[in-house]
Amino acid sequence: MDQQVHFTTLATADLDAARRFYVEGLGWRPLLDVPGEIVFFQTAPGAVLAFFEAGKFAQDLGRGPARPEVSGLTLAHNVPDRDAVHAVVEAMTAAGGTLLTAPEDGAFGGVFHALVADPNGVVWEIGHNPGWSVDADGTVRIG
Amino acid sequence: MDQQVHFTTLATADLDAARRFYVEGLGWRPLLDVPGEIVFFQTAPGAVLAFFEAGKFAQDLGRGPARPEVSGLTLAHNVPDRDAVHAVVEAMTAAGGTLLTAPEDGAFGGVFHALVADPNGVVWEIGHNPGWSVDADGTVRIG
Repeated sequence: MDQQVHFTTLATADLDAARRFYVEGLGWRPLLDVPGEIVFFQTAPGAVLAFFEAGKFAQDLGRGPARPEVSGLTLAHNVPDRDAVHAVVEAMTAAGGTLLTAPEDGAFGGVFHALVADPNGVVWEIGHNPGWSVDADGTVRIG
Repeated sequence: MDQQVHFTTLATADLDAARRFYVEGLGWRPLLDVPGEIVFFQTAPGAVLAFFEAGKFAQDLGRGPARPEVSGLTLAHNVPDRDAVHAVVEAMTAAGGTLLTAPEDGAFGGVFHALVADPNGVVWEIGHNPGWSVDADGTVRIG
């Protein structure tokens, strides 16, 4: 099995709120948008983040609660410096996100980060991590 | 805000089981492995999937239940043909995954797929989707 995640799909109680937040608020461009059902965004080369209406998500899965909620998950977006952490947090809250933890120094490695929930409660960590980098070919370096 | 997810982090009740499944069972190579705490895998150019010990995940998040469980999420891995769906499902179950839905035709678009849970209950969709492709530059095409 290749070491690749092609889709990350999240059960989404309010798909319209997700669209307003990511498309209208943050300026993301959908790869495919099926109203009332699912919105796909490309979030890395070859990788897609999908917001799938929660009832249809449960139906597709064929198991679990009728309206599952996302838990046990964070998504992280890294930025080049501390000022950019503030800027992205402001953009996310202006777009309808909820600030959970204001920008602060993390416990490890010089990380400076904040936590913001999207309108469906999906938790984003917005961070500046001086120990993280991505090579031109996409290879990630940590620590 | 750039349209990029750099880290997808999952609360993981049994980190050793996750390591056995992904590293020993499926042959994945960790980007960084901190025993008892977190294992990082690169899963796309510039993108990382992290399994974070559940108690530390909750502590890091500063909120929520002490041992959160992953819900409302699926990860998908696409393969080039229907035979490969069977092959990956067999590899995953041999590695300790639990078959949830045996390979079958999906409801839409000629998809042929199966669902397998990893040892911590994270649901993977293994699929052959003739309407999905990735260009050489990483651009995803759907439908």
